Amino acid sequence: MSLLVVGSVAYDSIETPFGKTDRILGGSATYISLAASYFAKKINLVGVVGKDFADEDIELLKSKDVDLEGLQVDDSGNTFFWKGKYHYDLNNRDTLDTQLNVFEHFDPIIPDAYRDSKFVALGNIEPSLQEKVLDQVSKPDLVVMDTMNFWIEGTPDALKSTLKRVDLLVINDSEARELANEPNLIKAADKVRNMGPDSLIIKKGEHGALLFTGDEIFSAPAYPVIDIFDPTGAGDTFLGGLLGWLSYTDDLTPTNMRKAVIFGSVMASFCVEKFGPERLKDLNEKQIYDRYREFRELSQIPEVE
Amino acid sequence: MSLLVVGSVAYDSIETPFGKTDRILGGSATYISLAASYFAKKINLVGVVGKDFADEDIELLKSKDVDLEGLQVDDSGNTFFWKGKYHYDLNNRDTLDTQLNVFEHFDPIIPDAYRDSKFVALGNIEPSLQEKVLDQVSKPDLVVMDTMNFWIEGTPDALKSTLKRVDLLVINDSEARELANEPNLIKAADKVRNMGPDSLIIKKGEHGALLFTGDEIFSAPAYPVIDIFDPTGAGDTFLGGLLGWLSYTDDLTPTNMRKAVIFGSVMASFCVEKFGPERLKDLNEKQIYDRYREFRELSQIPEVE
Repeated sequence: MSLLVVGSVAYDSIETPFGKTDRILGGSATYISLAASYFAKKINLVGVVGKDFADEDIELLKSKDVDLEGLQVDDSGNTFFWKGKYHYDLNNRDTLDTQLNVFEHFDPIIPDAYRDSKFVALGNIEPSLQEKVLDQVSKPDLVVMDTMNFWIEGTPDALKSTLKRVDLLVINDSEARELANEPNLIKAADKVRNMGPDSLIIKKGEHGALLFTGDEIFSAPAYPVIDIFDPTGAGDTFLGGLLGWLSYTDDLTPTNMRKAVIFGSVMASFCVEKFGPERLKDLNEKQIYDRYREFRELSQIPEVE
Repeated sequence: MSLLVVGSVAYDSIETPFGKTDRILGGSATYISLAASYFAKKINLVGVVGKDFADEDIELLKSKDVDLEGLQVDDSGNTFFWKGKYHYDLNNRDTLDTQLNVFEHFDPIIPDAYRDSKFVALGNIEPSLQEKVLDQVSKPDLVVMDTMNFWIEGTPDALKSTLKRVDLLVINDSEARELANEPNLIKAADKVRNMGPDSLIIKKGEHGALLFTGDEIFSAPAYPVIDIFDPTGAGDTFLGGLLGWLSYTDDLTPTNMRKAVIFGSVMASFCVEKFGPERLKDLNEKQIYDRYREFRELSQIPEVE
């Protein structure tokens, strides 16, 4: 099934305790698409880049069979640029520079050929823009949305309006607590699901993720990554692996949702091993399935009589 | 196999957002023994109480087949008393009062009949006292130790000396990071194991626990407790369930250690449902095994082809 991905396409300049890079490809739509490309048959990307966007980055996305009809090229300015520096513990980072550039006036226009996409991934952008996307698509099977504290605090009404039209929300634990105004994560999940999304995934970084779907809770472990090189894009990569698997299998049962959460975790665990999206460029099926099995072993609880 | 439990026996006065109690039974040795009593054949308790210690609390421990030959009754003062108040989110608490009383001069004397205990649980007391216990026992199969920030910061040398003689250390994530001086938990685990303990369990509260044993890592989920009534004693109860299972099965293979971690988690998940050790008084086997199965379902990752 086709997967529509809407979000940012950007250049990032990243410094971690292990090194630094100058202007590498980034953005939520980029990470989602690259991760999903290992599963999804057809990825339709909607985003905007500026006049500085490099041909080689276009080629990279094309080489992963990402359809770029929906990628607007705005010659009036440069591509969204973010510069950040991670702290020693990698859990915190400082934003050193943000240049919205052409992204400031991003208007997500969905090409006709994309409007019947069955799976929709709304990357972390302004909630009103996310809703605008939903106005342009016809009856998707699954709408998945990411958001962040910035919108929870800044545009709560628009966020709540969009949430009503979302099937699966994917946020991190601090965002879930803030959105629900409730410290207990299990209670917070209930409250958030009452705002609209049938299902909810709470990402907990080094502690794994929780999936709430139907009346089931699934607790997914985190992969024990010894050397986290660069956490940039891990959350979007999780979303990409998850959506890639769901759109590939076209199966929204709780059992298959569990598999999707693990494939999302698998892709994220690869992503953090190198700078930016580097590690997502040349994975193979065996590596991905082997790591899936490692996740199974990691959390296998033996039966007792 | 017999299980030797050394730690505090106390009275606690607890206030949570859901209510308050006046002087209820507490202390690490109490929680460990009560939780272990659902599995262990023979529990040998070593601790000290004062002249105020109630007969009904003696009777409670006896009713759970806890051997009290090692429980010293010091008539020169009262039992260790702690008063605390939990914050709204239950992750933080303020100590309102601590009266060490007879515990201040606690000298753990191991009765002859306890010296061949095959499993030893060193509750969170001063490391030099923990080591003194080890000087009095003959070749246990497994020495398990708990500790806390207070000793990591206050008596690092004594702690390191004791750690060398420990087989399994059970601490929480912030303690592991502090002890290893390393933010990455997986790396911190390596460093801590190099200090002595063959195996390590890192408790992560609402995020479950990690077991490091041999070259395996096991990630255990947390039970999704909707109403945490009182977290007091949850860590000691975890230790009790874990040790109870291990001493009952006398099996230290990684597979059985995984089961032990889950039984520890099961008992801790019950403990927090009521004030103090209340919930640990009248559980039955079916409740315990049913919850074990709930843990399995919670973290079950489906196979993929």
